[in-house]
Amino acid sequence: MKLLRYGAKGKEKPGVLDKEGRIRDLSGIIADISGETISPKSLTRLAKIKPESLPLVRGTPRIGPCVANPQKFIAIGLNYSDHAAESNLPVPPEPVVFTKHVSCISGPDDDVTIPPKSKKSDWEVELGVIIGTRAKNIKKKDALAHVAGYCTINDLSEREFQIERAGQWTKGKSYDTFGPIGPWLVTTDEVKDPQKLKLWLELNGKKVQDGSTSTMVFGVAHIVAYLSQFFTLMPGDIITTGTPPGVGMGMKPQRFLKPGDVMRIGIEGLGVQQQKVVRDK
Amino acid sequence: MKLLRYGAKGKEKPGVLDKEGRIRDLSGIIADISGETISPKSLTRLAKIKPESLPLVRGTPRIGPCVANPQKFIAIGLNYSDHAAESNLPVPPEPVVFTKHVSCISGPDDDVTIPPKSKKSDWEVELGVIIGTRAKNIKKKDALAHVAGYCTINDLSEREFQIERAGQWTKGKSYDTFGPIGPWLVTTDEVKDPQKLKLWLELNGKKVQDGSTSTMVFGVAHIVAYLSQFFTLMPGDIITTGTPPGVGMGMKPQRFLKPGDVMRIGIEGLGVQQQKVVRDK
Repeated sequence: MKLLRYGAKGKEKPGVLDKEGRIRDLSGIIADISGETISPKSLTRLAKIKPESLPLVRGTPRIGPCVANPQKFIAIGLNYSDHAAESNLPVPPEPVVFTKHVSCISGPDDDVTIPPKSKKSDWEVELGVIIGTRAKNIKKKDALAHVAGYCTINDLSEREFQIERAGQWTKGKSYDTFGPIGPWLVTTDEVKDPQKLKLWLELNGKKVQDGSTSTMVFGVAHIVAYLSQFFTLMPGDIITTGTPPGVGMGMKPQRFLKPGDVMRIGIEGLGVQQQKVVRDK
Repeated sequence: MKLLRYGAKGKEKPGVLDKEGRIRDLSGIIADISGETISPKSLTRLAKIKPESLPLVRGTPRIGPCVANPQKFIAIGLNYSDHAAESNLPVPPEPVVFTKHVSCISGPDDDVTIPPKSKKSDWEVELGVIIGTRAKNIKKKDALAHVAGYCTINDLSEREFQIERAGQWTKGKSYDTFGPIGPWLVTTDEVKDPQKLKLWLELNGKKVQDGSTSTMVFGVAHIVAYLSQFFTLMPGDIITTGTPPGVGMGMKPQRFLKPGDVMRIGIEGLGVQQQKVVRDK
């Protein structure tokens, strides 16, 4: 299933794509796409419903973040060896974990708002993992069973805030709109192997990132099990798993986001995002 | 007002202390103590109610975390110069910001559960700040108006996870029960100056931390305004503002938590916590 949320900010309704790629309204079945409704039991129930039997959503509504009210938005740093190289940092011996505050989450096509004085806002296409069941101190072999699905994420980053402002990356990772999520939560049955997905990002029509999850240092199962030893993963939690090469910080000369820039971002089978850059006043 | 939440985990009800220090039931007035009910408007309304007019809660119920479902739990590192010295780290030029995942929050007297193989779990008494109104890019002079109240926090830390496990402190700060919050959310009208509060921690009856918020490097108003430039603070968000000297990591020899240890923690006017240490299996 390709689950999604559509409608105005804060008033999104749940939906599902039908075979033709049209949105069908799920709000008669579940209240929202959230931790409560993406358990294996709930997804099994939803999978039995023919999308064509649900009301067709007409027009082209705004698409919201594909999961509502996640408790955590966890990010993995330097998880592609080529990206570590372009950042002039060694490949870490174990996953680097940081936080994007959930207040940064936005819809896949919403404008990205950079901070008033930002000079170093940057893009990062990443595979998103959405947790379906509680996971604490779990083993790698069991980890993927705790995953409800996958999505496209742009892990936006203000590099000055992240790196030059006294320790801990979270400062540069959490500005409002720095976490576009979606368009869809694609359930695991439609993603045969999360380590064989192409992912890419175009800036103003030019491809700047073009990678594959096959070159991740630590794969999804490793990451989910690893994180679960440090804190309990809850249904709806989002993990963004690192970016392949091609970010602005790694370019020579460096290239950062400016108002008017347009990013298009996609992952094989998980859908495409498009964001215009604006600046906060 | 001293607002609190009482009852079994996940089923807490809102309450308020009366003049005798007894719990009065607020559940007929508000659904919970949370971001929705600690706005200035809501607190003004609550302040007009005489606690003695509310139902008395009998017995000694468990006390829960004093705010329900915060979106963020933000922490400031190395914010007392003496603590930076005992950690062998320089006083930072601006606040060091890290994350405690909200899944670590527990009641003030709940057992603290250390990870199965933890060797370096440590304590930190800290002044907690609870946000009452949304704050984005605000000025220091306006910052305290966004605060709903204060509370006692134990910022538990696994030092190996925090420091020796490949970058970013969040790994060592967020194990389940590593965030006891409360007993009370004490509204700002009862805290004349948040920078003149004594705070202390006893381990097995012996005082090991004994400080004052007067020696903070960055005060509450500075921190709130500072954070608001990096991410939007939301009602209910919790900020824990750093610890004075006396943590186990700074002792010679170092002393970390063992099952059976008992911590008692207090801040002047904000109430006392007591936790027993157990180990997760």
